[in-house]
Amino acid sequence: MAGPATSAEIEKRLSDLGIALPAPSGAAGNYVPYVISGNQLFISGQVPLSPEGLKFQGKVGDAFSLEEGQEAAKLCAINILAQAKAACGGDLSRLNRCIKLGGFVNSTPDFDQQPAVINGASDLMVAVLGEAGRHARTAVSAANLPFNVAVEIDAIFEIA
Amino acid sequence: MAGPATSAEIEKRLSDLGIALPAPSGAAGNYVPYVISGNQLFISGQVPLSPEGLKFQGKVGDAFSLEEGQEAAKLCAINILAQAKAACGGDLSRLNRCIKLGGFVNSTPDFDQQPAVINGASDLMVAVLGEAGRHARTAVSAANLPFNVAVEIDAIFEIA
Amino acid sequence: MAGPATSAEIEKRLSDLGIALPAPSGAAGNYVPYVISGNQLFISGQVPLSPEGLKFQGKVGDAFSLEEGQEAAKLCAINILAQAKAACGGDLSRLNRCIKLGGFVNSTPDFDQQPAVINGASDLMVAVLGEAGRHARTAVSAANLPFNVAVEIDAIFEIA
Repeated sequence: MAGPATSAEIEKRLSDLGIALPAPSGAAGNYVPYVISGNQLFISGQVPLSPEGLKFQGKVGDAFSLEEGQEAAKLCAINILAQAKAACGGDLSRLNRCIKLGGFVNSTPDFDQQPAVINGASDLMVAVLGEAGRHARTAVSAANLPFNVAVEIDAIFEIA
Repeated sequence: MAGPATSAEIEKRLSDLGIALPAPSGAAGNYVPYVISGNQLFISGQVPLSPEGLKFQGKVGDAFSLEEGQEAAKLCAINILAQAKAACGGDLSRLNRCIKLGGFVNSTPDFDQQPAVINGASDLMVAVLGEAGRHARTAVSAANLPFNVAVEIDAIFEIA
Repeated sequence: MAGPATSAEIEKRLSDLGIALPAPSGAAGNYVPYVISGNQLFISGQVPLSPEGLKFQGKVGDAFSLEEGQEAAKLCAINILAQAKAACGGDLSRLNRCIKLGGFVNSTPDFDQQPAVINGASDLMVAVLGEAGRHARTAVSAANLPFNVAVEIDAIFEIA
């Protein structure tokens, strides 16, 4: 991949992947979906919310398989991109770099494939943003997550 | 709320809320309560420490109700503000923005109202700092927390 | 400790501590071990990987004692320093400051000495980097961690 992608190129990748970014969701309280500070964009933890409502409510390793956990992580990443697009005034090419993803898996105490689950989000970030999508990452299990969702992921981007 | 608040206005809000910021606690090891890097202030995870000692030691959803969890989160937020005030040399109006709160709830594996618990901190941040207090946020459950406290919250601020 | 340490001084401290930084490990997916944004260095969650392979696979409070947990945390910190050295082109004196460590302990639900465990990493950071190693910190328990390791720690540094 040579040079930064244009907004149109990134939108085409999303389209080629069959992904329509949803309207970004609001926040359920006295917090906001994202904050911009300098050239850093902090995005609140996103959950597997689809246009039809919350999906993947249950624990990976019990209610959900590894593959389903990856789908949940991908859905979190789609919502991260939807928030990032809103933060950038609609222009995804302003995302210079995905700096960090923080991945939390709602799992049983014996499930130990958190990296493979969160790859569902990491792979999408790179598929959509190219080299700019390659990020530092932390992947751990949570004892539970909001509304019992299987995965929650927050993000930090560098923006132009 | 029009324009940034002055230090006196913020102190009056605290007073009106019946909150006296405690002396900021030290750190229990080779780390520090906060680090300033550029115009970002990183505050270590704060726990429900009151002038009388640790409160809310136990799991939300078992030892503590949702409402008690919110009180614990509020106490964490008071300690965050105490550290932030120390970091700003006593002048809370230097807090340009609360960028991010990271909320961890010590809960049973079936408790799924982490956002409502952490609202106890988010609501206080906005009550005290106004628009500058609106932040990005992540709320998850931890398998346990230091000294078995019910809630731990860390924070990033942008400072002037 | 007077003034910032030189690269040679920091390398001597490591040597005096009997620590040889390993070759930094790669990342197990579409993410990277670290990202530099401005003068901030974000390091992905590091696990107790030794040259002989993963160590400390199991829960603190069950498979491992507090002291073993501290050893696991120290090993995470060694890997953080190895990544940081690579990020700085081999010159550890470019680490102006360890801003933040995020410590996750894989523990049983009743284990509550996360700070003491993560001190294994915090103490090493200060032993190696001096005042520049003193950081903000969050220490919590995770329901589980990748490959069932006992500790995972991520980091943010300010670099020159």
